Amino acid sequence: MIKHTIGIDLGGTNIKAALVSEKGEIIKVIAQPTEAQSGAVKVIENIKKVIADIIRYAERGFIIIGIGVGTPGFVNDYGVIIGGANNIPGWNGTDIKTLLEKEFGLMTKIENDVTALTLGEALFGSGSGYKNIICLALGTGLGGGIIIDGKLYRGSQGCAGEFGHIVVQPDGFDCTCGRKGCLEAYASAIGIDNIANQMMKKNESIKIKDTRPITIYSLAKQGNRIAKKIVQEVGNYLGIGIGSLVNIFDPDVVIIGGGISKSGKILFDSIYPSLYKHCLKFYEGKIKLLPTKFQDYSGVVGAASLILKDF
Amino acid sequence: MIKHTIGIDLGGTNIKAALVSEKGEIIKVIAQPTEAQSGAVKVIENIKKVIADIIRYAERGFIIIGIGVGTPGFVNDYGVIIGGANNIPGWNGTDIKTLLEKEFGLMTKIENDVTALTLGEALFGSGSGYKNIICLALGTGLGGGIIIDGKLYRGSQGCAGEFGHIVVQPDGFDCTCGRKGCLEAYASAIGIDNIANQMMKKNESIKIKDTRPITIYSLAKQGNRIAKKIVQEVGNYLGIGIGSLVNIFDPDVVIIGGGISKSGKILFDSIYPSLYKHCLKFYEGKIKLLPTKFQDYSGVVGAASLILKDF
Repeated sequence: MIKHTIGIDLGGTNIKAALVSEKGEIIKVIAQPTEAQSGAVKVIENIKKVIADIIRYAERGFIIIGIGVGTPGFVNDYGVIIGGANNIPGWNGTDIKTLLEKEFGLMTKIENDVTALTLGEALFGSGSGYKNIICLALGTGLGGGIIIDGKLYRGSQGCAGEFGHIVVQPDGFDCTCGRKGCLEAYASAIGIDNIANQMMKKNESIKIKDTRPITIYSLAKQGNRIAKKIVQEVGNYLGIGIGSLVNIFDPDVVIIGGGISKSGKILFDSIYPSLYKHCLKFYEGKIKLLPTKFQDYSGVVGAASLILKDF
Repeated sequence: MIKHTIGIDLGGTNIKAALVSEKGEIIKVIAQPTEAQSGAVKVIENIKKVIADIIRYAERGFIIIGIGVGTPGFVNDYGVIIGGANNIPGWNGTDIKTLLEKEFGLMTKIENDVTALTLGEALFGSGSGYKNIICLALGTGLGGGIIIDGKLYRGSQGCAGEFGHIVVQPDGFDCTCGRKGCLEAYASAIGIDNIANQMMKKNESIKIKDTRPITIYSLAKQGNRIAKKIVQEVGNYLGIGIGSLVNIFDPDVVIIGGGISKSGKILFDSIYPSLYKHCLKFYEGKIKLLPTKFQDYSGVVGAASLILKDF
């Protein structure tokens, strides 16, 4: 019998839950508002609700062997969130693993959301068949994940892969982490807003009302000059960051996911010139950027793969 | 019986050879000019000479199980130098492994010099007992090595760990790799020369005759204002690069080797303020920079450890 896992992708706005087969096929997806501002207790309640819904759905004959959860923040070896999950009040310190195992009696694994996404893409998605993979998720912030020799690399304290905090511009834009010049401050929804605001500050005739990535990339596709300039600037910094990562890791592939990656070709085209300018010549024209296979569902497949990787 | 290995550290100026025990103890060291400018054939001749000398020495009762060689440049899975060894004319493409195995009938392993050094320090030196280690060697250029879960990480083509080519200053100093703004162009003998020249260009009253690292660090120790400023600038960029690496790897320790590291406390003190300003706050005050244990001999111990790691 084919085995299945429940994958939970905990976002700041929505919780997505999916029933995923051991082959990485998505059988069923449901979503539920996170209600992050109501705090950790409410968020746990909502997670339990979507899990219960998937279990009910699975009663028609699917065998569930475990639950995987991708969460914002850093996760230690025991599945406890040890920091960095500042978009959900009270979430740091939560032992979600024990709570869910008690409630559902299923093996449960917790991991940083982008780390889990990276694993899912490595096992079943764009990274399938490759050994050494780096992944960047471009959303509100910028997260990263590392696969070394086919296995997840978590770092010594579970905090590896913070590609959003590679310094790409000494004394540059303020970053949410409290530092300056981080990649996230240039190449994320926050970064796009920073770049747009700087352009408006430098030139009063420029007015940008809506700095959301979806708007900027859509305007750029339509040929809007200002939007194109922002897209180019974001691509330039992504090329600097990814160029450094390629020189560090010598990876097989680089995967780009997250909400912003849905803008597609225009984003990838904006990165390559800077990437090939900043990686060692050895890699020029060779290193490939791949979009995630599972796009909006790369988070749930990733979460499920935390369990599936051992089967 | 204790087993021994021959470790060869091939530098641009000297070849060092050592007899190293399986416990990482150095029994005997000899050196020989590389004569790099005479080309690859002469260099191989010189390598064979020092190996023969060590074998002769070992005849008094040491059992030799293999030969490890640390070389400049990138090395593929078959021990062939595939590029990057530009300081020895004709060295790229050399199949040194096959040549030495034929000559001496001993198992032979070839690796990039800094990668080998990192392994030696991980097994027997400053990294002993740690799982995840990054190492920077500050010499004429800047090399790096990565230990993941106690094992050497070589990358997909044997080129991982090029920390010298992390971009730390967009459109900054020209680098020997043909790019701009690489860490090596700021934090190496070449980098120190770049920074000194820039200072002289900016201020004609500044005259620096000797920009060798040994001179600059020694003058800085004596309180020379200009030298102190150069040391601080190098430390600033090292902090940016190492800060990014810490955020990427979440390592147990960071090891600093290479000729410049012999300047000691003044170098380490110059890095910490910038490192703690550029790593995530999570690591502030925690992450430790360690000097190599074997200093001048970290290259030969590293080369020997290519064989010893499997025993």
